[in-house]
Amino acid sequence: MSKKESMNTNTSAVSEVETFNIDKEENFSEWFTEIVKRAELADIRYNVKGFIVCRQWSTIAMKRMFDFYEKELDKFGHEPTIFPMVIPESNFQIEKDHVEGFNPEVFWIDRAGNDTLEEKLILRPTSETAMYPLYSLWIRSWRDLPLKLYQSGSVFRYEGKSTRPFLRSREFWWIESHNVFQTMEEAIAQTREDMQIAYNVMTDIFGIPIIYFQRPEWDKFAGAVHTYAADTLMPDGKFLQLPSTHLLGSNFAKAFNITYTDQNGEEKIAYQTCYGPAISRIFGGMIAVHGDNNGLIFPFDVAPKQIVIVPIPKKEDIRHLEEYCIEIADVLRKKDYRVKIDMSDSRPGDKYYFWEMKGVPLRFEIGNKEFKKKDITIFRRDTRERIIVSFDKLVSIVADIGKAITENIRNKAQTKFDESISDANTLDELEERINDKKMCKIPWCSIDLDGEACAVEIKDQLAATVRGRDMREIDAGVISKKGEKCFICGKPASCYVYVGKQY
Amino acid sequence: MSKKESMNTNTSAVSEVETFNIDKEENFSEWFTEIVKRAELADIRYNVKGFIVCRQWSTIAMKRMFDFYEKELDKFGHEPTIFPMVIPESNFQIEKDHVEGFNPEVFWIDRAGNDTLEEKLILRPTSETAMYPLYSLWIRSWRDLPLKLYQSGSVFRYEGKSTRPFLRSREFWWIESHNVFQTMEEAIAQTREDMQIAYNVMTDIFGIPIIYFQRPEWDKFAGAVHTYAADTLMPDGKFLQLPSTHLLGSNFAKAFNITYTDQNGEEKIAYQTCYGPAISRIFGGMIAVHGDNNGLIFPFDVAPKQIVIVPIPKKEDIRHLEEYCIEIADVLRKKDYRVKIDMSDSRPGDKYYFWEMKGVPLRFEIGNKEFKKKDITIFRRDTRERIIVSFDKLVSIVADIGKAITENIRNKAQTKFDESISDANTLDELEERINDKKMCKIPWCSIDLDGEACAVEIKDQLAATVRGRDMREIDAGVISKKGEKCFICGKPASCYVYVGKQY
Repeated sequence: MSKKESMNTNTSAVSEVETFNIDKEENFSEWFTEIVKRAELADIRYNVKGFIVCRQWSTIAMKRMFDFYEKELDKFGHEPTIFPMVIPESNFQIEKDHVEGFNPEVFWIDRAGNDTLEEKLILRPTSETAMYPLYSLWIRSWRDLPLKLYQSGSVFRYEGKSTRPFLRSREFWWIESHNVFQTMEEAIAQTREDMQIAYNVMTDIFGIPIIYFQRPEWDKFAGAVHTYAADTLMPDGKFLQLPSTHLLGSNFAKAFNITYTDQNGEEKIAYQTCYGPAISRIFGGMIAVHGDNNGLIFPFDVAPKQIVIVPIPKKEDIRHLEEYCIEIADVLRKKDYRVKIDMSDSRPGDKYYFWEMKGVPLRFEIGNKEFKKKDITIFRRDTRERIIVSFDKLVSIVADIGKAITENIRNKAQTKFDESISDANTLDELEERINDKKMCKIPWCSIDLDGEACAVEIKDQLAATVRGRDMREIDAGVISKKGEKCFICGKPASCYVYVGKQY
Repeated sequence: MSKKESMNTNTSAVSEVETFNIDKEENFSEWFTEIVKRAELADIRYNVKGFIVCRQWSTIAMKRMFDFYEKELDKFGHEPTIFPMVIPESNFQIEKDHVEGFNPEVFWIDRAGNDTLEEKLILRPTSETAMYPLYSLWIRSWRDLPLKLYQSGSVFRYEGKSTRPFLRSREFWWIESHNVFQTMEEAIAQTREDMQIAYNVMTDIFGIPIIYFQRPEWDKFAGAVHTYAADTLMPDGKFLQLPSTHLLGSNFAKAFNITYTDQNGEEKIAYQTCYGPAISRIFGGMIAVHGDNNGLIFPFDVAPKQIVIVPIPKKEDIRHLEEYCIEIADVLRKKDYRVKIDMSDSRPGDKYYFWEMKGVPLRFEIGNKEFKKKDITIFRRDTRERIIVSFDKLVSIVADIGKAITENIRNKAQTKFDESISDANTLDELEERINDKKMCKIPWCSIDLDGEACAVEIKDQLAATVRGRDMREIDAGVISKKGEKCFICGKPASCYVYVGKQY
């Protein structure tokens, strides 16, 4: 067995496996907790509250997700950098709204070795205040703009809310992109580009349906002009916030003195945006959206292993089957597919359950019949269908099925998402729909601060939040129909907002 | 111009460029400081002592270096994980030697938000004490072994010594691999595999000559049975320590209770190794080893941009040249080469100097002559040779030259390294050779603790350190020749060691 076979699914684990079989729709919370444990995605026994260990299976998938996101950013002219993990207190204090927003959530470093530090440091909760002092030094003239930089790594937030692996933890793994422009128009255009990137990667490759919302004024990032955030819907009917894009305008540029000399030699203030896809949270959302009662389902390009090959011996003679399995694996590995041959002692049925639970998109079942005819029986995790293909057509068929799997689970998730959009004309109706796991699109007075009182009422009555306006409606100029009213305050509606419970 | 053209070498920077022209051999320290600044590798103005910002040019190269190292680890059956950046005090205290060794170097987190933490945390200086408590939970039986996991990220050490970008900083970026085995023999074999990986990646791909040493007993990793470390030689004749591999034996396994049930049902203690290639330091070593008086020289596969295309217009007519440049770039980008077209306003000569300083391996000079004949004039950064090739042969020639460049700079560095090995028979001779930037191989009494007094004398007299025994000599059973003596204590020599100044 080659060294590649050592993916740590030891025989002892396999032999203990039971069918997963937890009803995801009925009991999502238990499903999520159990799949994180059984599929060995994370270990929550690390002895610091809110910090998790990501095991191999999730790490490999998240590394791929980082790659896809970074490549898409590169394609749009962003470039990678690395900034320090620690931020001096004086930087952190510079932007007033920002420090107010983040102060309750930061970890403090006061000492090192036997010394008390001259200046206290924070662990970065986000990197505006690490990066922008340098931006101020780097940007001199219009020739230095636009500046579009990102970094990948972890950030730290001392969350008061209860934590859950991937979905909310005190350390999480993300990409943050920080961009500087000459004009507000360019900055606004960047926010649209960020949204496009989110659809290109999160929806097209990861298969996660999202709506990009402009968040109401009372729910913005600390220091932003506007916040645009992508939400998906979890199986329990709650919104999960995924990448958010912030139009910073000149708020930080003024605080951090980010200016440039324009084409006429005049000193101008710059405009900024930032964007933060939290890969660990997107991973959590992805497994929640696609999984089923048998366990995980991965998009084909993200799966840590894409194909598991299971020999099914009759009696004792397995050597020729193993050789055939290796021959099959070699052909696919040459094409860069991630293949596992499960030659452990477990029974084939146990192997089936185990790898279905782990979400491997394709299972090859190799018995004597397949060996003799040089065939492969392929089982698809997503549709649970079996087909038989001949060895010489394998490579092209795997490519086709791979695409079909991602497309199928993306469409399925999108359909469910679209069908979860409902409306409501009264608070009672709204409550009923939300309890029925729907997200409701309702006419609304305003997402400016005028509308906050109505949002507070919905929050008090239903523990639900106003997610904001669908960006596609904003960009298409959609407003509410004539005569529609905000059914909280009774004032004329100005737009539609989405309302629902929040993760 | 496509979005890909935006690699941030803005015109203003280009127009300011002067020839680099610092004598690396004579004045290495100034050369290094200046190249870090001029090539925009790092910004040392971040306002926390010992923490640097890695800019795009170094980040892109280091991302590639991480990739090469991770792929090589994967090939040998290691798997990626992610552990938290913070370690609770109680974990850190478990292994006595380890805590003694690292205590003076750790950053402490005592509070978060408005709370004092129940248990103090440290920023990881290395992750043994984060990982091994989980290893103790994960490993039950011999079926779970070997366990070979790694993670990539940054670690933090409150260094007393003066810091330098990439070479020594308080946050640095590395891969750490932590492995568990049933027997000491397997653990020892792993240390040899780690050394092989270092040669495969660091020497073959990055072109850095190294010797792997067994460090003397008085210079081991805190908690290890043996430490094996790769050293390269810097242009100023000082050793730079690169990846080190530690044979931990059962020291940590006993402290962290890492045991397994063997094939006979008996509970046994496990054996461990760990391995830590510091990519940021290797990057620093790589640019120091290969650079010349004109600036950086990159191995072809590591270079952030592999090819820069410079149009050389006569009079005003440049459009047709630009189109030809784009045609050339497109062909190469389809083959995944990283190509920059410099269409800025600077003069061609300034562009030449600038991109040579940045270390781009190939420059394509495209004038009217090239355009008319469908030729390309290729300038090689390493040899400074020019050749003319026809467009239709370009792809295969670039592949060949790419390989030749890496081979050439690797061989050049290796030759210089090998020629720097000298011997010495007296302390005076040793001093003279070391001052002449040599590393000296000398007969030595012992690398056990018996030999420490002699090492202290060399340190006191020459400020030089004993690096240890060449692993190739240990594995080949080479000992000192009959009658040779340690010229410090006069006792019979047992081996040869290398001595020199240390970075």
